[in-house]
Amino acid sequence: MKVLAFDVFGTVVDWYGSIVREVTQLGLPVDPAQFALDWRAGYQPAMARVRSGELGWTRIDDLHRMILNELLAKHTIDMDEPARRALNLVWHRLAPWPDAVEGLTRLKARFTITTLSNGNISLLTEMAKRAGLPWDCILSAEVFRHYKPDPETYLGVCTLFEIDPQDMMLVAAHKDDLDAARALGCRTAFVERPHEFGPHKHLDLRRESRFDFHARDFQDLADQLSC
Amino acid sequence: MKVLAFDVFGTVVDWYGSIVREVTQLGLPVDPAQFALDWRAGYQPAMARVRSGELGWTRIDDLHRMILNELLAKHTIDMDEPARRALNLVWHRLAPWPDAVEGLTRLKARFTITTLSNGNISLLTEMAKRAGLPWDCILSAEVFRHYKPDPETYLGVCTLFEIDPQDMMLVAAHKDDLDAARALGCRTAFVERPHEFGPHKHLDLRRESRFDFHARDFQDLADQLSC
Repeated sequence: MKVLAFDVFGTVVDWYGSIVREVTQLGLPVDPAQFALDWRAGYQPAMARVRSGELGWTRIDDLHRMILNELLAKHTIDMDEPARRALNLVWHRLAPWPDAVEGLTRLKARFTITTLSNGNISLLTEMAKRAGLPWDCILSAEVFRHYKPDPETYLGVCTLFEIDPQDMMLVAAHKDDLDAARALGCRTAFVERPHEFGPHKHLDLRRESRFDFHARDFQDLADQLSC
Repeated sequence: MKVLAFDVFGTVVDWYGSIVREVTQLGLPVDPAQFALDWRAGYQPAMARVRSGELGWTRIDDLHRMILNELLAKHTIDMDEPARRALNLVWHRLAPWPDAVEGLTRLKARFTITTLSNGNISLLTEMAKRAGLPWDCILSAEVFRHYKPDPETYLGVCTLFEIDPQDMMLVAAHKDDLDAARALGCRTAFVERPHEFGPHKHLDLRRESRFDFHARDFQDLADQLSC
């Protein structure tokens, strides 16, 4: 195993907590928790519009912005263009989970660590720079012109590094992402992120025998991989 | 100015010295200096075969290997497949110039620093990991499916970061690379690398008023940019 590819939103960074914090600070007349959940919930349908061909290739920054516009309209919130643009960039400013930087640093000593996210390159680069995420490489759906879980993304990483799927492991907090990678022969590590959707949502964190690893967090994964 | 994009071979790393060292250690029956120069000299003609359509898109690793095979044949050196593969990967192991890591670290504090190299992603990633080059992002001709100096490469960086060409600066030891970027409206910084082709080749290091900066090395560039 040579390359660890990481899902990012929810797996490496806490989008829910970061958005709740910024929306609260802005004093928007909404429930910040619900606003964060609604923003994130718009993301799969938005990607589906690209997959269906209704929209051409669209970076996640622009999908996030479309969803934000709809949410602001729904709440009849008047916000000017610069403020919308600034709020939309909250996705570049997501905070890492407490174990992420140290865990990644340990894993990096033994493996090549790369993002494999639907987030665009500039988003992932800016996020890493702010948060100190020590990626060896930043790969994105934007490079492959396909969103996860399309096979082109996982296999694209293998092609770039000239490795077989079994020499790449996807690390993610989402079982559907892992299943898509596993179907192609990649290795898989599930990481528990019980509060990805806030403190009240019950998530399925059960250990699944089909995944190669099951870790509480990145430190635990580094322990299991003897890093 | 937000993004500094760096040429890599010759600008960040010393391909000549690194190849001379490895070829000498291997004890090949060749003049190591001439071997290094010949290997590098095969690179522009090899890219030209891709540009002309004679070859499909080919990563630099594979171009380097084609040239290596020709050189070994020319010198009638018998080398088995694993040894050829290992030697070809010398391009992943090139050593940085002495000022590179510290200079880049200073520049990174103020700018987003990315590679913009004809080297493939795995080559650049492995090189950075070994040498400790602190890139924010690794971009390559491989992502844009065009080699420098094709405009798609420089403009591709601007598109990914959603910036205008004047907000991006190319840093390179090669005036033709800088001229191609400058023609598109990018800023340019020339860096002197007097020994890129070894101690005996005379290089044109003259200051050109058309470039925005002229630096002795990356530390000098960081000084000039107040990093």
